[in-house]
Amino acid sequence: MPDSLPPDSVGVVTPETLHFNAPIKLTCGQALPAFDLVVETYGTLNSDASNAILICHALSGDHHAAGYHSMTDRKPGWWDSCIGPGKPIDTSRFFVVSLNNLGGCNGSTGPCSINPETGKAYGPDFPVITVQDWVQSQALLADRLGIDCWAAVVGGSLGGMQALQWSLSYPDRLRHAVVIASTPRLTAQNIAFNEVARKAIISDPEFHGGRYYDTHVIPQQGLMLARMVGHITYLSDASMGEKFGRELREQAYKFGYDAEFQVESYLRYQGERFSESFDANTYLLMTRALDYFDPAYEFDNDLAKAFGQARCEFLVLSFSTDWRFTPKRSEELVNAMIAARCRVSYAEIDAPWGHDAFLIPTPRYTDIFTSYLDRVGREVSA
Amino acid sequence: MPDSLPPDSVGVVTPETLHFNAPIKLTCGQALPAFDLVVETYGTLNSDASNAILICHALSGDHHAAGYHSMTDRKPGWWDSCIGPGKPIDTSRFFVVSLNNLGGCNGSTGPCSINPETGKAYGPDFPVITVQDWVQSQALLADRLGIDCWAAVVGGSLGGMQALQWSLSYPDRLRHAVVIASTPRLTAQNIAFNEVARKAIISDPEFHGGRYYDTHVIPQQGLMLARMVGHITYLSDASMGEKFGRELREQAYKFGYDAEFQVESYLRYQGERFSESFDANTYLLMTRALDYFDPAYEFDNDLAKAFGQARCEFLVLSFSTDWRFTPKRSEELVNAMIAARCRVSYAEIDAPWGHDAFLIPTPRYTDIFTSYLDRVGREVSA
Repeated sequence: MPDSLPPDSVGVVTPETLHFNAPIKLTCGQALPAFDLVVETYGTLNSDASNAILICHALSGDHHAAGYHSMTDRKPGWWDSCIGPGKPIDTSRFFVVSLNNLGGCNGSTGPCSINPETGKAYGPDFPVITVQDWVQSQALLADRLGIDCWAAVVGGSLGGMQALQWSLSYPDRLRHAVVIASTPRLTAQNIAFNEVARKAIISDPEFHGGRYYDTHVIPQQGLMLARMVGHITYLSDASMGEKFGRELREQAYKFGYDAEFQVESYLRYQGERFSESFDANTYLLMTRALDYFDPAYEFDNDLAKAFGQARCEFLVLSFSTDWRFTPKRSEELVNAMIAARCRVSYAEIDAPWGHDAFLIPTPRYTDIFTSYLDRVGREVSA
Repeated sequence: MPDSLPPDSVGVVTPETLHFNAPIKLTCGQALPAFDLVVETYGTLNSDASNAILICHALSGDHHAAGYHSMTDRKPGWWDSCIGPGKPIDTSRFFVVSLNNLGGCNGSTGPCSINPETGKAYGPDFPVITVQDWVQSQALLADRLGIDCWAAVVGGSLGGMQALQWSLSYPDRLRHAVVIASTPRLTAQNIAFNEVARKAIISDPEFHGGRYYDTHVIPQQGLMLARMVGHITYLSDASMGEKFGRELREQAYKFGYDAEFQVESYLRYQGERFSESFDANTYLLMTRALDYFDPAYEFDNDLAKAFGQARCEFLVLSFSTDWRFTPKRSEELVNAMIAARCRVSYAEIDAPWGHDAFLIPTPRYTDIFTSYLDRVGREVSA
């Protein structure tokens, strides 16, 4: 079988688990006695460790951002379109670090990990994690890898929030923050959609107050619903219309409540697939981290004052049909950065795919991303 | 206790149940052997029955559109702001008819009614009802009331679809159709939200395949979720932000998954209240009627060709922040009406409240609605 990977792929990659054997104090007041982070890296760290880029993932993402896990793996990492030799995040010049966040369900310590105090899964006893906590744990990861200062911290959506938080928590430890399809804080509508998702999970009888691991069931229906409603907010009305319209699975109306329209079966399929691979407690945790993120809060609700802390340069990108985190929210970020005298580049990209556009390469998006990171690369010693 | 109702109220009203003792053949191919419609009327029918206005309700509406059910009733009907003496639908000149639609859960024959064949509630055996079926049953109601031709058929949202369908099914039986915050057909996104609502209900273990009446439970969690997700689509992002922002119920984050933000507890409250008063099978039925409505479908997907059937005059109104049925959808209606040489007046009303704006009187909305219906009234004999 002639297995060959695309020439612009980072190739076959192997995740690594790093153990951090010291307590980490969290925003909520609790601490974890120790924790694991699962990490993938692409490219080579240069001698003065100045070429490192941190990738921060969004709600349902993980450490597997690029490449393949085997020669027969059919699907590359979630941001393979942007990470690889010759791609915007060019692994021939950058050392790229991607992790599964604390509280995740893909190998890093999270609700489904064993709580050393009880010998059972943490479940609902796992603390609520904030964006600040993630950034703190990522700083410990940077220490472990010998990276004093990231060339750039890059993320879309919830990942963009982490890039923003880096600029405030550790202003001297990154030179650039790339903040894509993100927002300074959720609106009431954003929180409302998260609440529906959480309510769906929590009210599923198989949730068992979050201790479903003990009963060997999962709150599948709840998680499905959560994903379905989330999925609608990731796409634009127009792109859903383009993709499905009012197309029926069969020729005529069936006058029942089974999936008849293509969009119904698509959503059910997406929801089912997700519910089989993602942990419900992690979903709760990730949505709460989104809700709580509000860097202006500690600065008298003055976002410009918050960015007064920042020392890095910013690239902010938004997408025209993103109705989850609209271009207006990115403009709020940019306005506050400008008021705080930060260096910032901003572009609103015309793209029909809604929030998901940040995962889909288009010429202008790729060009801007590439040329910005080319500049980042030129600041780095060879 | 000095009970007095507002002077511009239609006063205390009493619903009436009308029994239709002949089979009605439905779009799905099934028939109901007989059915009841619960009706309220306001004002007086004139001698040639030319001053009658039919009110069509939306998803969760019912026959109680205006007035109070007793002198101590604290809440008037759902469209009391627009129906009454001196209001846009002026009951001092019009005879107003409002019904609970077939398939409803407020007294008209629906899934919770007794199936004469089994002696038990219909439940899932109740046929799926379409907008055409509603209009057919409303025509039988008009016959019963001695109304050959409505002065106007009026409705918002799903109610607007019924007004549109009247103009196609019975072109000679209405002089005006007032179509507010409506659409020629749902988009994929609209259907997707309906699908989430239905999936929430159907996957609730208390749904019991729709036969929950027998078990004396209701699928409350599912219905709550359905209403919560629906409610988000009725409001605008801006109006939710205005109403709730990121306000917390208590002073600080609690780092848990209970309702902390005001918007969370508001949604839960709305969902709970709704789930206690509305029937889950009716909710399924109403959302499916929305999905299926597509008058262009039988006319080679040519909406203008569909309106070629219409003889009435139209008033179409949309609201600037309505993202469920955007002004663009109303414009599609208007463009097709114009192409079909229909007489049509159109206005997009600036209002911050999203889809719900059709229930909230604002000066321009009220002015346009009033002056249009004043013209309708001047065509009517005294």
